[in-house]
Amino acid sequence: AVSGAGDALLAQCRAAAEAASGARLALGGLTPGARRDLLLECAAGLRSSAGAIVEANAQDLAGSSGLDAAMRDRLRLDAGRVAAMAAAVESIARQDDPVGKVVEGRVLPNGLRLQKRRVPLGVVLVIYESRPNVTSDAAALCLKSGNAVLLKGGREAAHSNRAIVAAMRPALAARGVADAVVFVDTTDRRATELLVGMDDLIDLAIPRGGPGLIRAVVAAARVPVVKHDAGNCHVYVDGHLDGLEDAAERIVVNAKAQRPGVCNAAETLLVHRAAAGRMLPRLASALSARGVELRGCEESRALVPSMKAATEEDWGTEYLALIMAVRVVGGVDEACAHIRRWGSRHTEAIVTSSLASAERFVSLLDSASVMVNCSTRFADGGEYGLGAEIGISTNKLHARGPMGAEDLTTFQWVVRGEGQIRG
Amino acid sequence: AVSGAGDALLAQCRAAAEAASGARLALGGLTPGARRDLLLECAAGLRSSAGAIVEANAQDLAGSSGLDAAMRDRLRLDAGRVAAMAAAVESIARQDDPVGKVVEGRVLPNGLRLQKRRVPLGVVLVIYESRPNVTSDAAALCLKSGNAVLLKGGREAAHSNRAIVAAMRPALAARGVADAVVFVDTTDRRATELLVGMDDLIDLAIPRGGPGLIRAVVAAARVPVVKHDAGNCHVYVDGHLDGLEDAAERIVVNAKAQRPGVCNAAETLLVHRAAAGRMLPRLASALSARGVELRGCEESRALVPSMKAATEEDWGTEYLALIMAVRVVGGVDEACAHIRRWGSRHTEAIVTSSLASAERFVSLLDSASVMVNCSTRFADGGEYGLGAEIGISTNKLHARGPMGAEDLTTFQWVVRGEGQIRG
Repeated sequence: AVSGAGDALLAQCRAAAEAASGARLALGGLTPGARRDLLLECAAGLRSSAGAIVEANAQDLAGSSGLDAAMRDRLRLDAGRVAAMAAAVESIARQDDPVGKVVEGRVLPNGLRLQKRRVPLGVVLVIYESRPNVTSDAAALCLKSGNAVLLKGGREAAHSNRAIVAAMRPALAARGVADAVVFVDTTDRRATELLVGMDDLIDLAIPRGGPGLIRAVVAAARVPVVKHDAGNCHVYVDGHLDGLEDAAERIVVNAKAQRPGVCNAAETLLVHRAAAGRMLPRLASALSARGVELRGCEESRALVPSMKAATEEDWGTEYLALIMAVRVVGGVDEACAHIRRWGSRHTEAIVTSSLASAERFVSLLDSASVMVNCSTRFADGGEYGLGAEIGISTNKLHARGPMGAEDLTTFQWVVRGEGQIRG
Repeated sequence: AVSGAGDALLAQCRAAAEAASGARLALGGLTPGARRDLLLECAAGLRSSAGAIVEANAQDLAGSSGLDAAMRDRLRLDAGRVAAMAAAVESIARQDDPVGKVVEGRVLPNGLRLQKRRVPLGVVLVIYESRPNVTSDAAALCLKSGNAVLLKGGREAAHSNRAIVAAMRPALAARGVADAVVFVDTTDRRATELLVGMDDLIDLAIPRGGPGLIRAVVAAARVPVVKHDAGNCHVYVDGHLDGLEDAAERIVVNAKAQRPGVCNAAETLLVHRAAAGRMLPRLASALSARGVELRGCEESRALVPSMKAATEEDWGTEYLALIMAVRVVGGVDEACAHIRRWGSRHTEAIVTSSLASAERFVSLLDSASVMVNCSTRFADGGEYGLGAEIGISTNKLHARGPMGAEDLTTFQWVVRGEGQIRG
């Protein structure tokens, strides 16, 4: 029970969850083709309501003076961004349907025919902040995977989110699944805490937002949570770099500086001792030119005296800013030991011309994504071809890394026989 | 923190978890062939230590006067049962290796080569009661999937479990992974609570035992838990039964009475109104002949007056005994509505000669296993061809139903390129 949360709020949250839960059966009755068409109709609804959505967004922006420029930018919608939202829904519509996909099947010795197939989870709760495009992305991924969805957006985007759901609702209603997408229309923060306690109605909660939101959800949750914690990512520049010196510089700079505020940006640079002498000054100068502050180990600082000294705290920090820790290591094994000790198992990259180094780097790490000769920034549902992503999981169970529609399903074993009993 | 748990116990538990965690890297260095051979050597160790294991088991049995006959039977080992344990380990050894299996792969538009492959979870904690064969089953499934395992057995089987681990240890030590199987050698119940809090060292906890054990683990856990809750299973006998009347009787009796104390035994019989007149008296008499007490709805009792009256409580009860609830329903939809309302989504069976009824039953239910014309009792890892099972998951996330070695893995995305950066 949430102290101080009124009965009216609880009743509203339960009604929302019950509506979504009630829509599951009707949703299950739609064929894959009908679900694809439904999504295309939702996208058409977004396109034809673009004016109303942008207008609603203007109301949110008008009330957003307390937000910083980056947050305001994420909140802002214009005709182009609404068109991009519709295009994402269309792209999800055209993906292979994950529901019913048989992932395993065999005939057992007693003649029983066994199939393990994907089925929807049921009701998915998505809790998110600022970016209103999550509303249509999450709705589309949940519908594609046969799930009803409860959307709990941030108060700063309430008008936009309400308008986006309203734009999709006629298409849903026309197919008898109006409540397959339910917008929890309250700006009361306690609603989140109430919703994540409803394990009789909700099968999965996905919080998308800052550490405060994630912590609050995990602390209050009785429903399973797939979440994204930390992204302390690494780039390791190996001693074998035949013809890859330029690529090393490009990858390090891209991984750190292209968009430093996101989870797949790199935070620590590890360099093999054999390459440090020629590569570190060059990398440091390229990073500095992009405004990156470097904090190095003693050995790095001997090569690049302008670096600040790194402390142990630096190895464990996800800066999400133009700061990078730097350490010289003795080889792949030492690099991986550092990453296993300090990393968050999100994404790590190696730059190497050695096949042995590449294979060893991949096999020694249990991070969700491991990159060979490319930037950590590619760890992304869109880049991986999943369409929009519902989130990035740093859990090891169920889903790992970027999550698409398939990650919103579970399995069902179906066994068909002719009267077999167990002896 | 566990109140009252001594520092010595905490130190012992941490040392055990650290030992297992430390063995992961060496275990990761073994090829699939070496892991297969390791398991065959463990099996040989069990066979050659059969005498010592049976002797240790005799000590446990001597101290087990407080247990009931069924518990004592589950605890008991003889030469035949030890041989069966070794055979299970050998069967797991010969399964396909799940580690490194590529489940998805494609070349992205920018030339990056993407693979999603299975990797071990890391350290798995198995908490179990009485049956000592779980010791070797769990160890084998974890080793097969490249995981180190912490085994926390019940105090009633402490001598047996210790002897089983000792029999496998020489094979593990010879391959440099002695601590890949760690027996938490304490009978202090508080050890479980301490271990499930160590989320820095343990990746997954699997409790196997009664509701009390499961509740205690879930309440104290900071590590993810895959668990088995309830098995309130149903058999629905449809109105279309051309040539399946005998099969219906056989399946109902098998599902209820072959082994009533297990989770995949049926608890409620649902019968289509059109078949009830001819089938219910026959089914009731067959069940009664097996000693099953029936508790029926009003309509059932009109057909079989000897039945007791069922209450709502009966629909929601997992008897795990020779008792069965009975209800007449109007068809597949009503049967499924009953199952969705009262069931635990474990396993349900339909007996029908109608293709439409079978398909609708499967599509309306989201239970982990759905059986068509066979007994609910087949919902079992051994029957499904997974070898021994590490448990049966009633979670929807990660694993569902019987869990084999593959369910002890997670995924890793590997991306290989030639210097690509994100634009």
